Amino acid sequence: MSETLKIGLLGRGTVGSAFVDLVGERAATIEVATGRRAVISGVLTTSQGDFDQILADADVIVELMGGTDPAFDYVRAALEAGVPVITANKQLLARRGAELFEAAGRAGVQLRFEAAVAAVVPVIRVVQESFGAVEFSKVFGIVNGTTNFILSEMAATGASYADTLKRAQDLGYAEADPTEDVNGADAAAKMAILARLAFHTPVTLDQVDFEGIESVQPDDLAYAKELGLSLKLLGVAERLPGGITVRVFPCFLYPGHPLSPIEGPFNAVMVEAPEITEVTMSGPGAGGLQTAAAVLGDLVSVVTGDAPTHQAPEALEVLSDVDSSFYLHLEVADEPGVLARVAKLLSDYGISVKSVVQRGIGSDARLVMVIHRCLESRFKQAVAEIGGLDSLRAPPRYIRVIEEEFV
Amino acid sequence: MSETLKIGLLGRGTVGSAFVDLVGERAATIEVATGRRAVISGVLTTSQGDFDQILADADVIVELMGGTDPAFDYVRAALEAGVPVITANKQLLARRGAELFEAAGRAGVQLRFEAAVAAVVPVIRVVQESFGAVEFSKVFGIVNGTTNFILSEMAATGASYADTLKRAQDLGYAEADPTEDVNGADAAAKMAILARLAFHTPVTLDQVDFEGIESVQPDDLAYAKELGLSLKLLGVAERLPGGITVRVFPCFLYPGHPLSPIEGPFNAVMVEAPEITEVTMSGPGAGGLQTAAAVLGDLVSVVTGDAPTHQAPEALEVLSDVDSSFYLHLEVADEPGVLARVAKLLSDYGISVKSVVQRGIGSDARLVMVIHRCLESRFKQAVAEIGGLDSLRAPPRYIRVIEEEFV
Repeated sequence: MSETLKIGLLGRGTVGSAFVDLVGERAATIEVATGRRAVISGVLTTSQGDFDQILADADVIVELMGGTDPAFDYVRAALEAGVPVITANKQLLARRGAELFEAAGRAGVQLRFEAAVAAVVPVIRVVQESFGAVEFSKVFGIVNGTTNFILSEMAATGASYADTLKRAQDLGYAEADPTEDVNGADAAAKMAILARLAFHTPVTLDQVDFEGIESVQPDDLAYAKELGLSLKLLGVAERLPGGITVRVFPCFLYPGHPLSPIEGPFNAVMVEAPEITEVTMSGPGAGGLQTAAAVLGDLVSVVTGDAPTHQAPEALEVLSDVDSSFYLHLEVADEPGVLARVAKLLSDYGISVKSVVQRGIGSDARLVMVIHRCLESRFKQAVAEIGGLDSLRAPPRYIRVIEEEFV
Repeated sequence: MSETLKIGLLGRGTVGSAFVDLVGERAATIEVATGRRAVISGVLTTSQGDFDQILADADVIVELMGGTDPAFDYVRAALEAGVPVITANKQLLARRGAELFEAAGRAGVQLRFEAAVAAVVPVIRVVQESFGAVEFSKVFGIVNGTTNFILSEMAATGASYADTLKRAQDLGYAEADPTEDVNGADAAAKMAILARLAFHTPVTLDQVDFEGIESVQPDDLAYAKELGLSLKLLGVAERLPGGITVRVFPCFLYPGHPLSPIEGPFNAVMVEAPEITEVTMSGPGAGGLQTAAAVLGDLVSVVTGDAPTHQAPEALEVLSDVDSSFYLHLEVADEPGVLARVAKLLSDYGISVKSVVQRGIGSDARLVMVIHRCLESRFKQAVAEIGGLDSLRAPPRYIRVIEEEFV
């Protein structure tokens, strides 16, 4: 009879329960893969279990409780006791990852966290292991399934943000309190983790600028469709002269972009570097079972392999003002010369226009433009000045665009 | 000064040269990732080097010579000497993998081969490590970039197969002798490797049925476009009642299928199982630099981790007659009753028709049909009988279809 693999489980919510079931159902496969019989040796919930006793009994700690307190203390205690840890806790890693990576390195013990970013889409392992010696230029993608579902639905149905959020909640794709998903904070935590791993530099959540999707209007999506664009909430971490940028924002993509066909609650991450060109990974980015499957993959690896030790020898600056391309939506008075005035003003700022669509008449007249890449601070100054023109009927609205056409 | 990591390199063609350059350019990154300074300690080419001496000097052997002879002897000798091996040699693994996996397991030494399938797209690691305890239902995808380039170009330009092959050769996407790529044999070798790993069962190249793209006609692509279909050369490994199927064939996909946007020389692999739903990985499937980057990822892992030991405890039957859906193209006499006769005959075989397009008049009259899933042997019997009808002006042509609509 093979040796047991004793799992101390912290937290038994949706993912924790799915993990317990999966360990039972896959017992034979786990034994083939690891040579050991996996058993849940202890479970800690708010009403049950004693952490010290669970740790003393465990070969590995699986942390699925979420939040940073008390998860941080438990994970650090396990690592310091020489017990490997698997966690799906993105907030924990994005806020206090540095201390935990250091504790794991000092103790020479594995800390694995595939499920913390994009659930079962294996981005953490691929960035850390397959591409362990790659000097990435860019890591970006759709890392929040709730917002991708909402944007896909809004584009398909023309419904409002509020109605679509309600529908997402009814279908289980959005939580009762969706704030962290829809405002971009959830994606920001994942991008902090990815940027740290990709660029070997300390990045924490408070360094990530993020915007959400709450103010996206159905007519933005309708006009964009005419321009051939699809809207995604993107996380972008990119190496630039002088540092890196790590941000989350809604963004239009041209057709043929590898991320534009990613619809519904799926996630997709692209990594770019000269020696790999670009590699894209996509799949379900949430779900109890799919997250549990990622944890199980880490469990097998804890037994059969060594995790790479994360180090952050670089100390790159996180830049906030970078070049972007924009979609600009102006509700204008239906009178001669408006386009000329707006174009002159943009030109004075050195900003060039890629395309313009004039639409509607009378009280529905609009200018919808795509602006070529320019420094964001300069664009925002120009937009502020445009917003002061008498001919504007409403404040200008803008959304970033990835300009490359792939078709 | 850190310890050296001595690399014995077998073969210095396109990939081997790119690997030597990459090891030089990424020296600092490799040292951060592994703690060791990578050096090429010996190179074996047809005109240079002595294998025994190279092996005696090496911490790791990198086999990039291709072919099975003498690569098999060298790789086995290295493993038996306790020296880990990295290879990009799909033919070697598809034909004689069983012996090499056994040698690696017996010696307790790593055998890594990410570059053997889809170059830098990390399918081997993901199947073996991220999803080490997943019970896959299906692993399939586009694993030959040459044929995907040719099919993309034919669809875009309407040019013939022969002209497009010539263009692919001029652009460096097809070799001077493209036989193994265009007839499906290259893809078959990759699918033999993927099926073995996914299903933990011995699969060798001679068990993989394969068809190529040589007989694809421009009008197949034109008619398919009307039906909304795109054509790909697919490798498919699937678990079925009674065994598995491992095959390579040209196949139409409906729009919205995750593989349909994969154009040009890219590769993409999808893996499916209940607990992971579906995960897709795509990127450049060939190229000297991209293949070398995959080898470098394995090199870092040889130092920092343990490779999973591949075992094949299952002994699944490889089935050859399975259900498929088909596109059927009939050049028919322009006379009443042809459709009725064909439909009656299909119906007599219990085969049902999903859609029919009648096109052309006189000597250009055609019936283009999509047939619902049925046993391939039965479909082929029906087609043979249709081919015998007086009303046919040419032998029937058919191509498989993946029927699921994703949109």
